[in-house]
Amino acid sequence: MSDGGEFGYIARRLAPLAGKGALGLLDDAALIEPPAGERLLVSADTLVAGRHFLIEDGLRLAARRALRVNLSDLAAMAARPLGYLCCVTWPDEASDSDRAAFAEGLAEDQALFGVSLLGGDTTRGPGPLTITITVLGSAPAGKAVLRSGAQPGDVLLVTGAIGDGRLGLQAALGELDIDADEARALRQRYRLPDPRLEAGKALQRFANAAVDVSDGLIADAGHLALASGLALDIDLEAVRLSDAARSWRVRRPDPVVATAWLASGGDDYELACAVAPADVEGFMAACQAVDLPATPLGAFSHGKGVSTRWGAEPVKVDRAGFTHF
Amino acid sequence: MSDGGEFGYIARRLAPLAGKGALGLLDDAALIEPPAGERLLVSADTLVAGRHFLIEDGLRLAARRALRVNLSDLAAMAARPLGYLCCVTWPDEASDSDRAAFAEGLAEDQALFGVSLLGGDTTRGPGPLTITITVLGSAPAGKAVLRSGAQPGDVLLVTGAIGDGRLGLQAALGELDIDADEARALRQRYRLPDPRLEAGKALQRFANAAVDVSDGLIADAGHLALASGLALDIDLEAVRLSDAARSWRVRRPDPVVATAWLASGGDDYELACAVAPADVEGFMAACQAVDLPATPLGAFSHGKGVSTRWGAEPVKVDRAGFTHF
Repeated sequence: MSDGGEFGYIARRLAPLAGKGALGLLDDAALIEPPAGERLLVSADTLVAGRHFLIEDGLRLAARRALRVNLSDLAAMAARPLGYLCCVTWPDEASDSDRAAFAEGLAEDQALFGVSLLGGDTTRGPGPLTITITVLGSAPAGKAVLRSGAQPGDVLLVTGAIGDGRLGLQAALGELDIDADEARALRQRYRLPDPRLEAGKALQRFANAAVDVSDGLIADAGHLALASGLALDIDLEAVRLSDAARSWRVRRPDPVVATAWLASGGDDYELACAVAPADVEGFMAACQAVDLPATPLGAFSHGKGVSTRWGAEPVKVDRAGFTHF
Repeated sequence: MSDGGEFGYIARRLAPLAGKGALGLLDDAALIEPPAGERLLVSADTLVAGRHFLIEDGLRLAARRALRVNLSDLAAMAARPLGYLCCVTWPDEASDSDRAAFAEGLAEDQALFGVSLLGGDTTRGPGPLTITITVLGSAPAGKAVLRSGAQPGDVLLVTGAIGDGRLGLQAALGELDIDADEARALRQRYRLPDPRLEAGKALQRFANAAVDVSDGLIADAGHLALASGLALDIDLEAVRLSDAARSWRVRRPDPVVATAWLASGGDDYELACAVAPADVEGFMAACQAVDLPATPLGAFSHGKGVSTRWGAEPVKVDRAGFTHF
């Protein structure tokens, strides 16, 4: 902290966002106490303008996206969010109204997700707007869900719809041949992901392992397999798509290649989970009870690596692209 | 996270730094449990190359400085550090050896301060290297020291020596007329501040309020006064200087102006504390017991604002500069 402008900004815009433990943002650190019997979880992610979000979407959406991407990490561990620290490096050309819009976006999503600002830092730099958010959450002792808990025979279940993140970014960049309403829906899914915090209870009760889909379904489900020391088989034909994504796919020459492309894109912020076969029905019902569909896509087994198929037909997905036989 | 390079870097360079609760850096969040009976504290600061550190000092020092600046925030609250999350946005031109040196710097200071890596994020951006560290620490319930606790009559005590941060930056920029040994000592103080964690017990036992001196002694001690709703009087003549700073001051035309300049510079990372008159001797002895001098510089009183003097002579310090009568 070094200029009066920062103190003014904190007092006017950020202090109203401060919650319990934040000490009014006046102190060097915040005091955190997880609810009795709960363990604290902490995660941090950085978003750089032009790389992880589109500055053209405005500062309000930038703030909300940054907060949601971080909340998604808590969702993946079946934690509920408590609060967050927000460190922003503003480009020199940022205006007061940019900063005001950013604080408004935080305020809006704080109310939606029941979190408050605990601290952070405001700096300036010659680079693009860079946002680092640290989220703190809690879960009952022993109930946080790790990536490494998948068991041989567990079913891979994925919440919501896959591929809207990638399509939404393409739509936002104007690179998608799709009708205007669908483009708008997809853009919105990219801009404002929905962290699947509502799946927390279902995960705590039924899931052996979970991860959020930020790098792409195949990659992130692969992280579950790798962390658990298992192999994973994924049926791409079973991947659930949104109406807009289905409408896009139907006009592709090859639905298999198109689906593999969607399952290799990032930014969906759905959850991929490992659930014992006997618990699949319970997990799906618990998700459905919070209006979140969960779809079985494959299974974990002894071995290593991820294999993909389209129904019975093997599909090869690698960095070079997608081929099927 | 989006490229194989990042995963390789995490596995090779960062995973060895991971500690208890970090889950091998494989999960979306870290699990934190403060020691029994203790409360958790969390703080985050961003350092931008060229603004908050000199990239010419190398990546090892950048990492260590970033960690220490954050640990200083825990020191100010009388907390002991538990671990940290490290989010780095690397410029595109950063090399593997830059990243290796950065991880080496973290490893070196982890060992010195007894902390471990809990998580974070590795991103790329077109701007300068930007480091955001979130530190977690703990203090016994009710023992964390806030800025707002100063009482009328409390004495302002400051650890260590003031002004080396500002002189050290000038020396590093080659803008200081001083002999080579002294310049080296000052540069080192700027590059590698010493977070005053060793003062924790003294603070917990004797201090009503504390802050770390990152913006400058006068400004930060003023934060104590403001947060506590009090006025503060500072005797600049009593400010303790290092040998190198004294040697610099003796060649200045006006020691009062020179001292005010030192007390208005940042980056000292000493602690400024409010201590009741009856506890001053105890506080100083407890600091001395950990080889840290503490110097009384003034007193808090009813009212508002910070006044400075040189012995009995009032000194006016404002943004425009320093004048004395």
